[in-house]
Amino acid sequence: MIMSAQTHLVHQFDEDLDELKHLLYSMGDLVTEQINNATKAFRTGDIDLAQSVKDRDAAINALEVSTDRCATLLIAKHQPTATDLRFVFGIAKMATDFERMGDQARNIARASRDDIPEELIEALAKTNIVESTIKTVNLAMLALKNLSETAAVNTLRSDGDVDSAFRDGIKVVTVYLKEHPDDVEKALACLDLLKAYERLGDHATNIAEHVIFILDGEDIRHLRLDALPENLTKLS
Amino acid sequence: MIMSAQTHLVHQFDEDLDELKHLLYSMGDLVTEQINNATKAFRTGDIDLAQSVKDRDAAINALEVSTDRCATLLIAKHQPTATDLRFVFGIAKMATDFERMGDQARNIARASRDDIPEELIEALAKTNIVESTIKTVNLAMLALKNLSETAAVNTLRSDGDVDSAFRDGIKVVTVYLKEHPDDVEKALACLDLLKAYERLGDHATNIAEHVIFILDGEDIRHLRLDALPENLTKLS
Repeated sequence: MIMSAQTHLVHQFDEDLDELKHLLYSMGDLVTEQINNATKAFRTGDIDLAQSVKDRDAAINALEVSTDRCATLLIAKHQPTATDLRFVFGIAKMATDFERMGDQARNIARASRDDIPEELIEALAKTNIVESTIKTVNLAMLALKNLSETAAVNTLRSDGDVDSAFRDGIKVVTVYLKEHPDDVEKALACLDLLKAYERLGDHATNIAEHVIFILDGEDIRHLRLDALPENLTKLS
Repeated sequence: MIMSAQTHLVHQFDEDLDELKHLLYSMGDLVTEQINNATKAFRTGDIDLAQSVKDRDAAINALEVSTDRCATLLIAKHQPTATDLRFVFGIAKMATDFERMGDQARNIARASRDDIPEELIEALAKTNIVESTIKTVNLAMLALKNLSETAAVNTLRSDGDVDSAFRDGIKVVTVYLKEHPDDVEKALACLDLLKAYERLGDHATNIAEHVIFILDGEDIRHLRLDALPENLTKLS
């Protein structure tokens, strides 16, 4: 069966959109892997692994450039409107978030050193900031890949745990600094680390907000969690 | 004279683009004002002024939402291609940067307290981080409003001074922390402050890179300053 010109165009649009989604998902997968490796490097003081995370950041940056190029080409070629345009636009915005998440994984790798006192590592581990952040990022990826509003709303809630763990972590470092003024550099590395996880949670939140925008056309970026529209609060 | 349909469309496109630019410039102007006020609040320990900066951040967030809405509407309505599309796309990306710059101004305001020791304020002032950052942000605004490649390249160079001042600032705080373990909270507020200026410089750099992309179609976001294309290095 020969396709009509119209069918062909729709088919071509779907293919181009798939390519664009593939680029964005690749960014997300690579970012997730970088976060996991950077976390491992920090926890074990593995300086080689930390270096490999720093080296691979360039691959995420290159994917951002490709994603943006692909998005503008798709718009120019197919001139999408309504939901399709919102999707393409959202993808370009999410690419920026993933690129910044890559920077934060690099920051975690940079903060890795093999002489962080055990006492400090254990106190920070109790805040669960790493687990909360990785959970939040995974929820955002789920929201994106499944275009799931429920996962998106759960991402926002999960980021609340990251923020709370962050505040606990700051207290841990503050107390440690008062008691060990000679260990300032090590404590500041932990502060950089905490900040990186906290920012990762924020970017995951942005991803979730873009997913909601794509699905609903509802821009909730600057609303408080308790001021979400009713259709969304019911999901949680 | 009655306009032809074609002329009318072009005219309408120009009007819509002007509205979009106006929204983005308003964000930029408001961000610049917020940075100046936050800086003043920190320097003078003016807690009321700090509060007003925090309160006004919502206006920047609202402008981001309006800018994005205006950009997608413009694309859907006029289906721009090539340079025009790159411009509209670039505006949407820059809106994200301005929104984050607003957050950094708020962070400076948050870090403001009226009990930072004079000795620490003076030592940080010597790094010139505030002057370097404000210069970098002003250059980025100039690059944007005049679509000036020269101003854009100068923004990138100026951010080098911010980064260098940031490193000096970290050293100042590190030394201070070792000598005054009881002043941890005050020193950490200064660290938040330094970080905020450093991030402002990064966002100004992003703006400049988007301007270059709009003008040249050249994506230089992840190139080192010494690896810029020859046509750009000649400008500096």
